[in-house]
Parts: sequence; structure tokens; C-alpha cells
Amino acid sequence: MGSIILVTGGARSGKSAIAEGRTLSLGSPAVYVATAQAFDAEMEERIAAHRARRGDEWRTHAEPLDLCGALALTDGSPRLVDCLTLWLSNLILSERDWQAEAARLVETLGAQASPVVLVTNEVGAGIVPENRLARLFRDAAGLLNQQVAQAADEVILAVCGLPVKVK
Amino acid sequence: MGSIILVTGGARSGKSAIAEGRTLSLGSPAVYVATAQAFDAEMEERIAAHRARRGDEWRTHAEPLDLCGALALTDGSPRLVDCLTLWLSNLILSERDWQAEAARLVETLGAQASPVVLVTNEVGAGIVPENRLARLFRDAAGLLNQQVAQAADEVILAVCGLPVKVK
Amino acid sequence: MGSIILVTGGARSGKSAIAEGRTLSLGSPAVYVATAQAFDAEMEERIAAHRARRGDEWRTHAEPLDLCGALALTDGSPRLVDCLTLWLSNLILSERDWQAEAARLVETLGAQASPVVLVTNEVGAGIVPENRLARLFRDAAGLLNQQVAQAADEVILAVCGLPVKVK
Repeated sequence: MGSIILVTGGARSGKSAIAEGRTLSLGSPAVYVATAQAFDAEMEERIAAHRARRGDEWRTHAEPLDLCGALALTDGSPRLVDCLTLWLSNLILSERDWQAEAARLVETLGAQASPVVLVTNEVGAGIVPENRLARLFRDAAGLLNQQVAQAADEVILAVCGLPVKVK
Repeated sequence: MGSIILVTGGARSGKSAIAEGRTLSLGSPAVYVATAQAFDAEMEERIAAHRARRGDEWRTHAEPLDLCGALALTDGSPRLVDCLTLWLSNLILSERDWQAEAARLVETLGAQASPVVLVTNEVGAGIVPENRLARLFRDAAGLLNQQVAQAADEVILAVCGLPVKVK
Repeated sequence: MGSIILVTGGARSGKSAIAEGRTLSLGSPAVYVATAQAFDAEMEERIAAHRARRGDEWRTHAEPLDLCGALALTDGSPRLVDCLTLWLSNLILSERDWQAEAARLVETLGAQASPVVLVTNEVGAGIVPENRLARLFRDAAGLLNQQVAQAADEVILAVCGLPVKVK
């Protein structure tokens, strides 16, 4: 069975770099499953900066919604999913049933034959947002993180670019 | 002397479930000291969801303000206080002297003959809030957390539903 | 070579007290390099409260911008820089090139003959701020934290006033 590794952390905590290193340590070339969708220039810049940091050892597969489908297209290479929070946001924006999708992801992760590293975000350690949608989103993100962490063999918290072992 | 255990974490980090498991490991039935007050439908939903997760092993005692009084009503069962952040919010909204109440809580915790598990929230790891009251609240919450953590025998940080030992 | 120690944490997580204790354990009197500038009464109160907690073992050196210059004025005493997030904020407000300054700081830290303890903030674990400047600031703060953490011999995360070893 393939290892399932979850890397979480705040914004700019270095979680993507940690996850990339961890993925390549499991084999290369690796597949980068990008959930980001560029809606504006700021997002495009972030995506470009992420892509620029990755080298030839990566094949990129962009998939904003059907993560389970993306994980089914496997040739034995390790996969990096970056990131679950954007995936959740995409699901909610396109009015999918995120709870059903989360359950399907957990089931899919349990059936992987090659490693999957997943990046997610810590979004719940600030003051309660005044915006109701923001509150619903942070609840959903926290619940998704718990479910994936339970299914994971390893969970890492990124702090200042450094990995802290959680599981 | 009874153990004092503090469980902290962000929103939906799984801290309540960790605290419940820890409390029941210390004896059952246990007493659930609920500090939540339902002001609106969203809050009522959260309270109901929490209550639904707990089973017959719990007796619920609702107490929004007089936490020390609630801890005095003991029959030797372990107590779970969920949560300190709502208690602090209740104190501030009812214009009590939260610093005096915090000092009284710390003193009360030092005199317990049976275990007390307390849940609190990490609220200070986001951007400085623009709202002055939100800034004052996150300062107060942080100071309260420090005082209770100092009085505690054990402190646990919940990350993605998993416990990280802090003390 | 002097030790470089980074202490991070959310607001009111007790990071300054941990950093002060760590600094004095390396020698005293110590130099307190204060980056705070009082623009309003709230800030003045915070600065005064911090100063009141420190005793005679400290000499204070206020320096909002030229941190490398402040670190050059050394007599072998340990230095405490409190804090990097305010320094970053000062740089951005005065329209300096913070990335160049961050690179210069990392270089300066690598050349220290006596210990430097630096305090910083976790600002990226809340919901994405609606304000674009706040988003840019939390990105910059996260990147600065990563660079200093990489240059540090030791990194500590403050949780409820308690130190968690990160590096």
C-alpha cells in the first residue's frame, strides 16, 4: 500500500516546499496535481511562482474538482496534491456536495497503491471571521483536514518552513 | 490532587473530541460543563451537534459565567469545560472583570480533587484584526490561555484532529 | 559563533517572555532591540507593558528599521530582537525593499559572534484576509520567518506560553 502523507500549515509556512521534498524522496518523476484555478492576476502570479520552483522532476496535472479521478490516473509515481483547501473552495463555489466528495477522497486514499502527499492549510487559528461564509469555509476546511489526517499515515505541520511531526 | 488538562487548537481542529476522549479515560460518567449560550440559530446548531456526539456517559451542566461555582459541585467525576474562549466572551459581554475571574479560576483549578479537562481556542495566529474589540479579545484569550496552561499538568495542541503534546 | 534562536507564535502566546528567559540564560545584562514604534495610545500601552516586565538586566536599544546596524553595535552581550513582524511592517510602511533587507539580515545573523534571539509572529493561520495589503503582509511575514528560521540554530513555537521545539 502507498503512503498517505498530509502536510498542513499557515499561509507561507513553507508547506508546499516540504511536501515537494517529501514527494520526490518517494520517487521521481512525480506528478503534481494542481487544484488551483487562476481567477485573477494575483492567483496567476502565485501559480507561476509555484511552478517556477518545481523543476523537470515533475509532471503537472491540473484538476480543480475531480481529485479522485486525478488519483486514478496512476503509473506508480508519487503524487502531490496541492492543495486541499483550494479543492474545497472549488467544490463549494461550484455548488458540489463537499462532504460527499471528502468521504469519496478518504475512500480513494485508502485504496492507493503508490504514495500520495497532500498539502492543506491551517485556517482556524485566527479570530472568528465576521463573514458567515468565511466561518462556514473554515469549519469545512477543519473537518476535511481531520478526515484526511485520520486516513493519513503521516501528518506534518509546517512552522517557519520547518516540519513538525504530528502523526 | 486531580489532573488539570488543557486542550487548545484552532476552529474545527478536533479539540473537543480529543478533550472528550481524554476526560472519559479518567472516569465515567463525566460532567460536561458547557459555557456556550445560544444567541442565534448558527450557535444552536453547533451546540446541538456537540451534544449529539456525546453519549450516555455524560451529564451536562450549562454554566455561561460561574465556572468556579460549577467546578465546586463535584462528586469525584472528571469534568470537561468546553470552552474557555466562550466563557471569556460571556464575561466580557456581561461586563465582568475577566482578569479577576481568570485569577479565581486558576486558584480553583489548583484546589481540585478530581480531574478537570478544559478546552480553549487558538485565536491569535491570523493577521491583526482591524476591529479594536477583536484585538482586545484575542489579547485576553491569549493571556487566559497562558495562565491556565501554567496551572495545568498537561497541555495538548490539536492539529487536524490529532493531539500534539505541549506540556 | 553565537547562537541564533527564533521564537515564533501567535498574539499573546507568551513568545516574548520565552525569548526573554532564553536570552538571559545566555548572559546578562542583555540588549533588548525594540523594533516597535508607538503611533497611537494602544501601541504605547503595549510597549510600556513589555518594558515594565523587563528588569535591570536589560539595556534597551530602539531601532525600527536598521536592524543590521543595531546588531553591529555589540559588546558580546546576548541580544533580543522583538520583533521581526514589526520590523517588517516598518520597512513596508517606509517603502524600503524588505526582501533586500531580509537577505541582509540573514547574512548579518550568520556573522554574529554573540547570541541573537529573535521574536516573530505567526500571522498566516487564519482565513485569507479580504484586504489585499493584509494578504501581501502575511505572505511577506511568512517568507521572512522561513528565511530567518533557516539561518537559526534553534526555532521555538510558543503555544499558551509554553515552548514547543521546532528546530
